[in-house]
Amino acid sequence: MENETKGIIDELKQKIDVYLHDYMEEKGSYNKKIYESMQYSLDAGGKRIRPMLFLLTYMMYNENYENVIDIAAAIEMIHTYSLIHDDLPAMDNDDLRRGKPTNHKVFGDAIAVLAGDGLLNEGMNIMFNHCLKNNDKNKIKACSIISESSGVEGMVGGQTVDILSENIKIPIDQLYYMHSKKTGALIKASIISAAVYAGASEDEIEKLNYYGKKLGLAFQVKDDILDVTGDAKKLGKKVKKDKNNNKTNFITTYGLNKCIEMCNSITSECIDVLGRINRNTKNLEKLTLFLLDREK
Amino acid sequence: MENETKGIIDELKQKIDVYLHDYMEEKGSYNKKIYESMQYSLDAGGKRIRPMLFLLTYMMYNENYENVIDIAAAIEMIHTYSLIHDDLPAMDNDDLRRGKPTNHKVFGDAIAVLAGDGLLNEGMNIMFNHCLKNNDKNKIKACSIISESSGVEGMVGGQTVDILSENIKIPIDQLYYMHSKKTGALIKASIISAAVYAGASEDEIEKLNYYGKKLGLAFQVKDDILDVTGDAKKLGKKVKKDKNNNKTNFITTYGLNKCIEMCNSITSECIDVLGRINRNTKNLEKLTLFLLDREK
Repeated sequence: MENETKGIIDELKQKIDVYLHDYMEEKGSYNKKIYESMQYSLDAGGKRIRPMLFLLTYMMYNENYENVIDIAAAIEMIHTYSLIHDDLPAMDNDDLRRGKPTNHKVFGDAIAVLAGDGLLNEGMNIMFNHCLKNNDKNKIKACSIISESSGVEGMVGGQTVDILSENIKIPIDQLYYMHSKKTGALIKASIISAAVYAGASEDEIEKLNYYGKKLGLAFQVKDDILDVTGDAKKLGKKVKKDKNNNKTNFITTYGLNKCIEMCNSITSECIDVLGRINRNTKNLEKLTLFLLDREK
Repeated sequence: MENETKGIIDELKQKIDVYLHDYMEEKGSYNKKIYESMQYSLDAGGKRIRPMLFLLTYMMYNENYENVIDIAAAIEMIHTYSLIHDDLPAMDNDDLRRGKPTNHKVFGDAIAVLAGDGLLNEGMNIMFNHCLKNNDKNKIKACSIISESSGVEGMVGGQTVDILSENIKIPIDQLYYMHSKKTGALIKASIISAAVYAGASEDEIEKLNYYGKKLGLAFQVKDDILDVTGDAKKLGKKVKKDKNNNKTNFITTYGLNKCIEMCNSITSECIDVLGRINRNTKNLEKLTLFLLDREK
């Protein structure tokens, strides 16, 4: 059982990696540079957590994940665009991402802005095309959930609050708001959209919604922990960023020990709610524990 | 007849202005700033050509344009996002747009990047929601056409080539490619998507496709003419930008007189093909002539 789960997670990661790489391969004419730039950031790797959550949730209802791998890839494109824009000098001004020079360091600021724009747009193109081929209300709804989660009431809104919170101490509710939007929204949407797509019951969607919300929070608390305790080499990016940028985070709010405790207890809540769904949730459980234990 | 057309064009422009303003009004909490920033650029005005083309084409088939005003607004949001990003210091570094300080001059570079991202994303949200309420293949196809036109094979791709063409003389076919993508793609898509949405015949779509392609070209040649002959005050932006940025454009390629001639003859071709469509095209004709005669 253990190996089977590990097997499918590795298999999915590889499928996503290949899909994303091939998608950009040998495309473009005069605009070839934009494909190179998008491919560069997609190929930089990453854990592929969001597309994985989408596919694993879908697989609770339907084994044929190949049907929806395009949507999984669209989610990762949207996530990758957000990283490229977050790293820009105008934003967090980061030189390193996933152990490689950031997009703008390689392609320049202008192309990096455009590569981000292009990835967001391409993610949407993929979803519209998917809906065109699979014209069905649940499927359109699923794409709409993903699209909403990355916008101003989701990721973009969260990043806005993050930018506005530099060098000021923000209240706890604003900290939770920021992360529930910036990181949480797309993570939760990856799960919920797959369930909606597959025709899950309202009760299941409610439980997965709770799971997604908690998972997003655990993910962010863990990120803040790694920012303090992590190894820059393993993480592939700078550490102690929040401290250096004078940002409020979960560590500055609760302290390291309390954060570790929080991360464990929220993860337990995640596992617990999955256990109350009357389907095979073992792969999602495995991924949840992996996220708690990760070193990057 | 003349006044009737003027009447509907003014009416549509006002409807679009109000829709866009109200859309962003009193929204947001901690993320309120992003709505203010998006609203600032939407309210800066502009000719609303793309949403107007969408609505006027739709009205050849169906008078009830209120049904699709959300999609028209989505198109203008996408256009506005592209202006915000184009104006960034990392791109064209412009201080003035439509006679007002550019978005990043007012809100800072980080919020301007996010406002652009937010507008693109919100345009897509609107279209997914529209498809959800009007689940129909033609309608999804229409949204897909708009989405494709703004991406790497459209506007983003054209802007990429524009950025890469600074300070070098580019061949004529590359100049045509650049503009057909950067400006032409979304203009053409505004027309074609409306026709597809409304269930136009293949013959009509083919003619409108020709019209849209030519109109986009005439629009760009006119833009290049105004960059040389125009009044910065009326235009609300800097003139002689291409010359100062050492960019190849239609003027540097063909000279001013030839460009004026081109603009007239392409406009005639536009009017001609509209005349061969067996529907009421008078509003589109009027808009076409307005675009030729415009001073901004």
